[in-house]
Amino acid sequence: MSRIAYVNGSYLPHRQAAVHIEDRGYQLSDGVYEVCEISDGYILDMTGHLDRLGRSLSELRIAWPVHRSALVTIMKEVVRRNRIRDGIVYIQVTRGVAPRDHAFPTHPVAPALVVTTKRLDRSKLDARRRDGISVITLPENRWERVDIKTVSLIGNVLARQAAVEAGAGEAWYVAPDGTVTEGSASNAWIVTMDGEIITRPANDHSILRGITRATTMRVAERLGLRIVERPFTVAEALAAREAFITSATSRVTPVIMIDGQPIANGRPGSVSQSLGEAFFDIAEKTPA
Amino acid sequence: MSRIAYVNGSYLPHRQAAVHIEDRGYQLSDGVYEVCEISDGYILDMTGHLDRLGRSLSELRIAWPVHRSALVTIMKEVVRRNRIRDGIVYIQVTRGVAPRDHAFPTHPVAPALVVTTKRLDRSKLDARRRDGISVITLPENRWERVDIKTVSLIGNVLARQAAVEAGAGEAWYVAPDGTVTEGSASNAWIVTMDGEIITRPANDHSILRGITRATTMRVAERLGLRIVERPFTVAEALAAREAFITSATSRVTPVIMIDGQPIANGRPGSVSQSLGEAFFDIAEKTPA
Repeated sequence: MSRIAYVNGSYLPHRQAAVHIEDRGYQLSDGVYEVCEISDGYILDMTGHLDRLGRSLSELRIAWPVHRSALVTIMKEVVRRNRIRDGIVYIQVTRGVAPRDHAFPTHPVAPALVVTTKRLDRSKLDARRRDGISVITLPENRWERVDIKTVSLIGNVLARQAAVEAGAGEAWYVAPDGTVTEGSASNAWIVTMDGEIITRPANDHSILRGITRATTMRVAERLGLRIVERPFTVAEALAAREAFITSATSRVTPVIMIDGQPIANGRPGSVSQSLGEAFFDIAEKTPA
Repeated sequence: MSRIAYVNGSYLPHRQAAVHIEDRGYQLSDGVYEVCEISDGYILDMTGHLDRLGRSLSELRIAWPVHRSALVTIMKEVVRRNRIRDGIVYIQVTRGVAPRDHAFPTHPVAPALVVTTKRLDRSKLDARRRDGISVITLPENRWERVDIKTVSLIGNVLARQAAVEAGAGEAWYVAPDGTVTEGSASNAWIVTMDGEIITRPANDHSILRGITRATTMRVAERLGLRIVERPFTVAEALAAREAFITSATSRVTPVIMIDGQPIANGRPGSVSQSLGEAFFDIAEKTPA
């Protein structure tokens, strides 16, 4: 089965799926994206992801490429055509094609839209979520508007690559004040010895407003767990009872080691596991 | 005449010039670029631009997409096929096409190469260089490796757009310490009342190592002018005798106003003009 991608109005075989060299996404990273998990045939938290897409577009003053309801139809159609039950759906919107110039095009251009999907091995995802990952820490060096989910990701690319080369699953950025901002593609959390769940507030520009982060908060509330939104340091994380990350593909994934030092007994903690187990039930589920 | 672009081994009509949706340049801004001015049938400072391309590639650990000498051949061929005598040649190299993942592809992929060229109206360029531009100032908010010429440019896009909307030609980034780092797509300079030419050192990661900047230094030396490499503040710039920017397309372009306040008498200064006039003679000229 050849994979099918949606590109600017057409459903195309993956191999032929192309965008123009002067798409501003390619030359200037002038675009935004979203990734939704597909699980058991459901798109998880689609409303949250599309709300955030709308915010990202609005921050960059890019119009919706199609009506929001049409985008939902396209997402479902791409998933259907590729017969994906477990995986992700990826949405990218850029400002469109125009002669290269940093400033916005002076003549209106249509935003570009790409939607793809990918099957993921559910047992591998489950294993990662069960066994946990190691993280490394790196100095925060990204631009100051990481709350906008742009494709300007070279810093994240280099951070994640550094993690991989260190045998870790994620890199946590550390601000000059010693606090963890977030991971290269996930939000960061700890659970203190008192059982408080701590994560950085997402009300400024320093982290992405994670959709899985928000769902995890709802899960915690349902489980009667206490969340405190405040920055935490690497030292606090190392002294924590447990730590974890959240993202659309990792959901709630335990962190068992930071920079080679184990957290608590070096095994996934019970809070992370409870949050992970209840996640699917509480997430919004849209039949794909 | 249809314009011709080089894309991954083929010379294609501009309209058909496309890259795959999973080119890492498109999804992750995982690539670098260069822009050389073409003037009177010569590519200016090609050696410097290709040296910097090599450095950018090396910093991101991307291989040369073709041998450097082959790239020169391609650049000249694109210019020749499009019959450009005054304009720019644009080179973009990305890490290549691979299933989306922040970390580098685990299987080696060939880097992608796009080379395009564009005619620019010489009289318009000359007028801008003669008449000067206004700049606005904005807080520096980009990532910390702007010395690498990546396509991760969304911050620069927004800054330049802000400038355009303010009726200005460029935006200068101002660091937290009040010093000007550089423009959204140019280096920043002032000339003090004592006739010293001041520009920020390019020996750290805070600005791009401008090729036109380096040529401008050679021009100044030839003219017997004194350059001091040190950061300068906006206040110093406002109290300066003159100010200017340098970039491949602007060469030496006078700045006559900052945030609406005129510099000196609000007209282009003589140092900028002398540097601009001598620039073409001293720049390296490679027949296209």
